[in-house]
Amino acid sequence: MNKNYIIPNEWSIIEEVFDTENVKASESLFSIGNGAMGQRANFEEDYSGETLQGSYIGGIYYPDKTRVGWWKNGYPEYFAKVLNAPSWIGIHIQINNTNLDLNSCNVSNFRRELNMKEGWLSRSFNATLQTGEEIRVEAKRLISIELNEVGAIEYSIKAINFSGEITFSPYLDAGIVNEDSNYNEYFWETLNIVEGENKGAIYSKTLKTEFHVATAMQISLELNNEKVSVSHETNVQEKSLTYTYKLNVSEGDTATIYKYGSYVSSLNYKNSELIEASLSNVQKATELGFEDLLKLQKQSWAEIWKTSDIIIEGDIKAQQGIRFNIFQLNQTYLGTDARLNIGPKGFTGEKYGGSTYWDTEAYCIPFYMATKDSNVAKNLLLYRYNQLDKAIENAEKLGFKNGAALYPMVTMNGEECHNEWEITFEEIHRNGAMIYGIYNYVNYTQDFEYIPKFGLEVIIAVARFWHQRANFSADKNKYVILGVTGPNEYENNINNNFYTNYLAKWCIEYAIDCLNKVKHNYSEDFNRVIVKTKLAKTETDKWMNVADNMYFPFSEEHNVYLQQDGFLDKELIPVADLPKSERPINQKWSWDRILRSCYIKQADVLQGMYLFEDKFSKEELERHFDFYEPITVHESSLSPCVHSILAASIDRMPKAYEQYVRTSRLDLDDYNHEVDEGCHITSMAGTWMSIVQGFGGMRVRENGILSFNPQIPEQWKSFSFTINFRNQTLKVQVNQTEITFELDGASDLQIKVNDKTITVTPNNLVTV
Amino acid sequence: MNKNYIIPNEWSIIEEVFDTENVKASESLFSIGNGAMGQRANFEEDYSGETLQGSYIGGIYYPDKTRVGWWKNGYPEYFAKVLNAPSWIGIHIQINNTNLDLNSCNVSNFRRELNMKEGWLSRSFNATLQTGEEIRVEAKRLISIELNEVGAIEYSIKAINFSGEITFSPYLDAGIVNEDSNYNEYFWETLNIVEGENKGAIYSKTLKTEFHVATAMQISLELNNEKVSVSHETNVQEKSLTYTYKLNVSEGDTATIYKYGSYVSSLNYKNSELIEASLSNVQKATELGFEDLLKLQKQSWAEIWKTSDIIIEGDIKAQQGIRFNIFQLNQTYLGTDARLNIGPKGFTGEKYGGSTYWDTEAYCIPFYMATKDSNVAKNLLLYRYNQLDKAIENAEKLGFKNGAALYPMVTMNGEECHNEWEITFEEIHRNGAMIYGIYNYVNYTQDFEYIPKFGLEVIIAVARFWHQRANFSADKNKYVILGVTGPNEYENNINNNFYTNYLAKWCIEYAIDCLNKVKHNYSEDFNRVIVKTKLAKTETDKWMNVADNMYFPFSEEHNVYLQQDGFLDKELIPVADLPKSERPINQKWSWDRILRSCYIKQADVLQGMYLFEDKFSKEELERHFDFYEPITVHESSLSPCVHSILAASIDRMPKAYEQYVRTSRLDLDDYNHEVDEGCHITSMAGTWMSIVQGFGGMRVRENGILSFNPQIPEQWKSFSFTINFRNQTLKVQVNQTEITFELDGASDLQIKVNDKTITVTPNNLVTV
Repeated sequence: MNKNYIIPNEWSIIEEVFDTENVKASESLFSIGNGAMGQRANFEEDYSGETLQGSYIGGIYYPDKTRVGWWKNGYPEYFAKVLNAPSWIGIHIQINNTNLDLNSCNVSNFRRELNMKEGWLSRSFNATLQTGEEIRVEAKRLISIELNEVGAIEYSIKAINFSGEITFSPYLDAGIVNEDSNYNEYFWETLNIVEGENKGAIYSKTLKTEFHVATAMQISLELNNEKVSVSHETNVQEKSLTYTYKLNVSEGDTATIYKYGSYVSSLNYKNSELIEASLSNVQKATELGFEDLLKLQKQSWAEIWKTSDIIIEGDIKAQQGIRFNIFQLNQTYLGTDARLNIGPKGFTGEKYGGSTYWDTEAYCIPFYMATKDSNVAKNLLLYRYNQLDKAIENAEKLGFKNGAALYPMVTMNGEECHNEWEITFEEIHRNGAMIYGIYNYVNYTQDFEYIPKFGLEVIIAVARFWHQRANFSADKNKYVILGVTGPNEYENNINNNFYTNYLAKWCIEYAIDCLNKVKHNYSEDFNRVIVKTKLAKTETDKWMNVADNMYFPFSEEHNVYLQQDGFLDKELIPVADLPKSERPINQKWSWDRILRSCYIKQADVLQGMYLFEDKFSKEELERHFDFYEPITVHESSLSPCVHSILAASIDRMPKAYEQYVRTSRLDLDDYNHEVDEGCHITSMAGTWMSIVQGFGGMRVRENGILSFNPQIPEQWKSFSFTINFRNQTLKVQVNQTEITFELDGASDLQIKVNDKTITVTPNNLVTV
Repeated sequence: MNKNYIIPNEWSIIEEVFDTENVKASESLFSIGNGAMGQRANFEEDYSGETLQGSYIGGIYYPDKTRVGWWKNGYPEYFAKVLNAPSWIGIHIQINNTNLDLNSCNVSNFRRELNMKEGWLSRSFNATLQTGEEIRVEAKRLISIELNEVGAIEYSIKAINFSGEITFSPYLDAGIVNEDSNYNEYFWETLNIVEGENKGAIYSKTLKTEFHVATAMQISLELNNEKVSVSHETNVQEKSLTYTYKLNVSEGDTATIYKYGSYVSSLNYKNSELIEASLSNVQKATELGFEDLLKLQKQSWAEIWKTSDIIIEGDIKAQQGIRFNIFQLNQTYLGTDARLNIGPKGFTGEKYGGSTYWDTEAYCIPFYMATKDSNVAKNLLLYRYNQLDKAIENAEKLGFKNGAALYPMVTMNGEECHNEWEITFEEIHRNGAMIYGIYNYVNYTQDFEYIPKFGLEVIIAVARFWHQRANFSADKNKYVILGVTGPNEYENNINNNFYTNYLAKWCIEYAIDCLNKVKHNYSEDFNRVIVKTKLAKTETDKWMNVADNMYFPFSEEHNVYLQQDGFLDKELIPVADLPKSERPINQKWSWDRILRSCYIKQADVLQGMYLFEDKFSKEELERHFDFYEPITVHESSLSPCVHSILAASIDRMPKAYEQYVRTSRLDLDDYNHEVDEGCHITSMAGTWMSIVQGFGGMRVRENGILSFNPQIPEQWKSFSFTINFRNQTLKVQVNQTEITFELDGASDLQIKVNDKTITVTPNNLVTV
């Protein structure tokens, strides 16, 4: 554990000491968002210390010219970057003409709270300026879920020991940059700045992509809780608009500014409507007022928590951890806009670029599927369906033919925007995740119709890819897949990665299975797809030949599948024997040393066994867990959750609990030394899975039956979670002695609990 | 073959058609240099078409900030770039106020010649301007070997069809850039511009490295071969100095400008002396005059050719090819300055950066050792000896300990300046080449004393590296070397590369052998080195354990050593079956496809068999050649020469000849589609080897005995070469029926010819 300053609390993230060392970490942790936009918890007032400014609008990106050391054929020309957008939160503050800057005054009674139950961020502190004036500041901020183009700030200053002048200068700033710009270029151009009485807007567009965005603000002021009308000076600069309000205060007075902000973009409006729409939004927000916006926000979050909360009794840090994960996931993506996806940093940072990784299919779909209406998961699948043509183009660039598709490693619009050959070209297992996501969705929802209507085309294109990507090894008399990177990115360009080979074989088998089902039950769709894809029986026979004869590296000595060919040439030294000073190895070791070591970044063989648990016996799983987990460094955020789930399924509760704590508090305790750059959003879905699938033992198998094998860590008194299952809501509560089910719906539900089938009837508690 | 415009000629490179498509290629091919400096064959007059301007000073480099997509620990912060230096060759030319620019006028009777026998470049053409004036231009240029800081231009214009004004505006230009600058930065700062009567200088320094350089010019003019005195206008700009001379001519007159240029640098002078030194150089050159400089140049080149020429009768293209190779090598490096080395593009382009690759040890040392005094080869070894501390630091950065050294992949000053993990960190076989270079030198010169005095420390540090880099595989019960890139860079991060493992084993065995010899014969040096390196018997025992138990991948089925583990999983499709449209694969295929294909970029297993020919039987070599050559694409310039030599040694003369033509005319015929970026200088030493070691069958084994097994391609009438062997000069002439030896020296020489020992006495022809 590397940071330890967050105060444990059931519903809130709290810090109580102002420490400049933690500012960037807290900017990430206290981020707020509403699925459509979000922002880091940057201070409203000026701050001259280290900070990463960030305010982001979902779906607005910039294709930054790719930077490489050496160009390889097939690299994308441009890398889609998450864009820091023109900011509306800033308020310069002066006390008797001295600037307020927490980096240069004495700060006490500092407290920051991110209230996850109600969806707001507050900050309060006393500040004594170098000129002697002491003030008390109380600030609160929210990004509205209900009015999803609106945010609001309430910012109060009490004059503790002086009478004089408080100056508020709220501003809009379009002169923002991305820290990760490859060539230090500006990504935005300011087109227009509109002034008005207490309100204004900046109209800008992104270069190249030409997204148009209007950013608006509207201001109102209070003195000692009474509305005051103060005229403002206006300062229009090339890329900013600032209004300056001066208030005379006496000792003990409190001056408050309300700043309402709005983003609207050309994703949702005609360009010509944008300025007006943004101004209308802030007008509406001002009319509602901060208190009413806050009320709406509480309602919205109450709705969200109703179907997604997890309660843990007896372990406040675990409770805080899981709610933080669920909260951030909902801040990032609410499933209301099918054009959006779940970026790995959400709206908490700009790192990694792109918004869509295989994380969506492998980690996020189970969470959204079980906590929201099934349309949300379907939207995530359709996102890939809509990008199939680009995935086929992408595969063509790499020499594949005949409609084979390779989905990008990272994307915003379907085009690949990642450029390390060992990832971009070789981490092809992602293609299997696309299919696993469909399989998972169909099992959970039993919406098989998705396959004939949409999924089958994707399934065929991916099967074609695997068929072409494998080659026959005369030496092994089997099909092999050479030159890949598995989920364990601490190995590159390896041969016969177990996980990749397994997925490839499974994808082909699933394709054949789907083709057969569609042929029999949806003949019209079948014919349409066959014509469109020009698929012939001779081709599927060739696929099956590859699947039937796929090679898997296996060690007779250890009785385990090997992660890749030659794995046993490595020195197998357990992570426990590595000096602490050498960890994390990705920060301490050179790349070649990592590669030739036995250390595994994240589950790889075990990831496969996690996805296809039915195909392996418990003894097999135990053997593989005992072989691989001790050499796994878990330096990917996606690792601990899978290991927690697997450990629970083989009754290793201490290990399951250890890995649960790590996944759920990864960012809160900054295990990976990088939370200042943003939170790990997608792995938060893994945290949710480690409760529901891990301790809850929830599974939905191909036959569609829901089952539970609950276990509870000894540290906990009880835990409970709620899932949306085929339009009914099932609450599961587990304590040390019993399991209780409560169904909110219209019809009985047959579930399996610890291998026995039971019936749960609506609105009755069933205890096992 | 891809370009075919160079006119075959025994001693000259000639082009006779002006084609804008060939300008950049010719700029490379017609480059001139003197080992200390050199330049591309850029036109003196303005040229608005595509061009790569380049003028380079040996040892002057710039540490350009490294550009990467994703940073890996251990990457160098800076990448040493070969620097385009302030240019002195430019002359703006106006005819009746119209600019001369071959890109915008009619050009006829164009001819360019690089005279390799005498060391000069000429160009002549008729040009008709858009305004109708026709001129005849005759230009000649040289970089003096004798006055190695001086170059000279003679540039004549005849007024064919007009009377009027010819304006010469010779200039110095410090506003030059490197095309390969990572961040479009200027590398030079102009410090001072000095004007004078017909002469001037620009004093500049490189940023960061602070090399100081003065670039000077001096001008004289003639009209119809009579000296004329014309006063000049002076134009001083921020980074340039231009003198303008106007001459009135009548139809039929010839106006000639002589421009003398000089570079002097802080490598050889105090900063305060530089301007004066450069001006004194051009003064001296002007006093000598162009004709005398040309005479000196002819003498210098006659000296060089005396000990390095190769004559081929009956195949003019082969003759032109080999002389071009020998000529360019001598233009790049003459062995007179131990601080310099042999850059892969010499002074013909800026690509690749750095000046020193393993090419020096593996390819260039044999050439320089046999064509120059043995001090030249020794200087090349000392260059590495002097950089041992930095090689140890480099290894420490990658986690090695206890004085292990890893020599950089690319360097200017001993520090690594390459940053692709698969090369920088993994292409470690280069470390073995350092030792092979020593071994080769000692065998050839019998200067064993080099080892106790210098070489042993390098040999120990490299043995330590291999010992630490190998690890014990419990699975194989052998030592393995994981995660490397071999000479065949079309495979990355492979395990147990035959070449690398073989070199590692050999380096350790050679280290033990040298330690024993030094202990017995140079005990004082032995003790000094043992104290300095803290070497103990227990350590060398561990080394030997690794060497004795090194693993080599071998196929029983094919009866060949495998290039790496798992090689036989690939589909082995001969290059001959690849469609032409897909070649070169490095321009047509994505990187992953290249990696998983069977195609080999350059000799790898065969490179090992080439270096250690004695250890393998002819049958073994044949088997390996037949297995690997058909899947080798030779897309490295270093590949054809080795294959030519090996083919000759197994009596495959057609293949040997084919590969000889490819290596010798690689640039002249632009096999690799990239000559516009510069010539492949280091592989030119390989071309020399393919005659001397290949067709000549020359070897010097550990016992120091010189042997020959000559064979002659059926296309040739005869060939001859000359070598410097332990201070005597031996000329070897081979024709279809006999071999003749002629010794220029003081004492008899015993040599082996086709396994028989014969005696050659000085100044007597011996025919076998």
